[in-house]
Amino acid sequence: MPSPDPQRLSLNTATVKQQWTLAQAIEGCARHGIRGIAPWRDKLAEMGLQKAVAAIRAHDLTVTGLCRGGFFTAKGWLDDNRRAIEEAHALEADCLVLVVGGLPAGSKDLGHARERVQECLSRILPEARQAGVPLAIEPLHPMQAADRACVNTLEQALDLCDALGEDGRNAQSALGVAVDVYHVWWDPKLEEQIARAGRKRILAYHVCDWRVPTRDLLNDRGMMGDGVIELKKIRNWIETAGYSGFHEVEIFSELDWWKRDPDEVLKTCIERHRAT
Amino acid sequence: MPSPDPQRLSLNTATVKQQWTLAQAIEGCARHGIRGIAPWRDKLAEMGLQKAVAAIRAHDLTVTGLCRGGFFTAKGWLDDNRRAIEEAHALEADCLVLVVGGLPAGSKDLGHARERVQECLSRILPEARQAGVPLAIEPLHPMQAADRACVNTLEQALDLCDALGEDGRNAQSALGVAVDVYHVWWDPKLEEQIARAGRKRILAYHVCDWRVPTRDLLNDRGMMGDGVIELKKIRNWIETAGYSGFHEVEIFSELDWWKRDPDEVLKTCIERHRAT
Repeated sequence: MPSPDPQRLSLNTATVKQQWTLAQAIEGCARHGIRGIAPWRDKLAEMGLQKAVAAIRAHDLTVTGLCRGGFFTAKGWLDDNRRAIEEAHALEADCLVLVVGGLPAGSKDLGHARERVQECLSRILPEARQAGVPLAIEPLHPMQAADRACVNTLEQALDLCDALGEDGRNAQSALGVAVDVYHVWWDPKLEEQIARAGRKRILAYHVCDWRVPTRDLLNDRGMMGDGVIELKKIRNWIETAGYSGFHEVEIFSELDWWKRDPDEVLKTCIERHRAT
Repeated sequence: MPSPDPQRLSLNTATVKQQWTLAQAIEGCARHGIRGIAPWRDKLAEMGLQKAVAAIRAHDLTVTGLCRGGFFTAKGWLDDNRRAIEEAHALEADCLVLVVGGLPAGSKDLGHARERVQECLSRILPEARQAGVPLAIEPLHPMQAADRACVNTLEQALDLCDALGEDGRNAQSALGVAVDVYHVWWDPKLEEQIARAGRKRILAYHVCDWRVPTRDLLNDRGMMGDGVIELKKIRNWIETAGYSGFHEVEIFSELDWWKRDPDEVLKTCIERHRAT
């Protein structure tokens, strides 16, 4: 299988979140020839939306996703998601990534949380569609079901898309999925569900690796090649499904990559991306 | 929903593994009126099989499962599984619990590991059947896919049972599943797959709880009631499927329960079991 096009590499700014502001990450991408960027909203707020838009345009970067909307079980979710849609629109982001939220405080009712996610999605979907911002449901690893996202498999995310009328038959999906290898690599139905998603519903593709052992449930992701995920195989499935977009590197790494020189991190991302 | 019958409580000895030998755990169960026990093979070897059989019979305990066979990707798996079947037979265990193993050292080929599991199962199944020892595939949480078990959902485990000709239509299944709430509670298809498993293929039911936050991927399980798992709801699904066997408490807890007085642990298990 040929190496991926380096022009398809995107930096999710979480990968250098401890070292760089968004302005620095934008400059860093430009300096290293990385053509895509996916900012997080806290850093975006810090920099200011207009400044960010200007800097990203000045370097002709593609915003491969805005992280994140969702958290539908939290208070103020509607206003927050509306703001996220506006920001994604201003950034001309390929999608708004949705981390849907876990159990509300004090609740154990996972079924109810999941119903709520569907209701909230149906509420914001028309607004997102009108703004031209595709919504990408990101299924999160089952170990994060309680505290971050109660959508935990690609199958479940696609069932949600189907239920909301986004079954991939439209010219462009207003609702689809973000496939992050870290969350889905273990799934025995992954190949089948990637094929089911198809080109129109795969709105983003995130890469990193699964370290063995994994020392923390949230912030111990590995750099591509340092773990056990078959990145080439999954990329092949994704491309076979018709996806030809960016490969976004997203690494939360308290113990390793967040401690390193960010220019070294970007260089390593570029090197390792070649081998995925 | 009525409280479960206290006579259905079983102690998986891992719950007190840092405090007690198997002999002490057997005595502990007898002293506290716990009628089921599920020993681990390292402790069994330490005590000696014949002594263990005698002590368990003397107290008329039911062995709700022997932990564990499996690890099919390790060297010497066949002999090891044969010994496990013999031990389970001697103990008249309800089942031999199979933790199937993860990726072999140096491999990332999850698909291959899964094929190997099926091959190895087909190899030992006739011997287990002959010995009258039902084999219980335990799907493990996806976060343990790389290092402990590449069977990670109940659906996948039941697909394996189907593939090996154990589709629940036989009078008694020689191959079925162990449903441990810790591993499967997050699964959007849990209710459906428990119903699919049915009475004949649910060979064991394990309880504990999912702590928020979870501080370790292996040894931070919670006592029933201390986490977010809807134990009553899942028990209802299990009973609706026709299961009327034991509820085995299995808690790996480096930071909490393994540090406590084991008699207190058993008392707490009994108390909390009432509320599940």
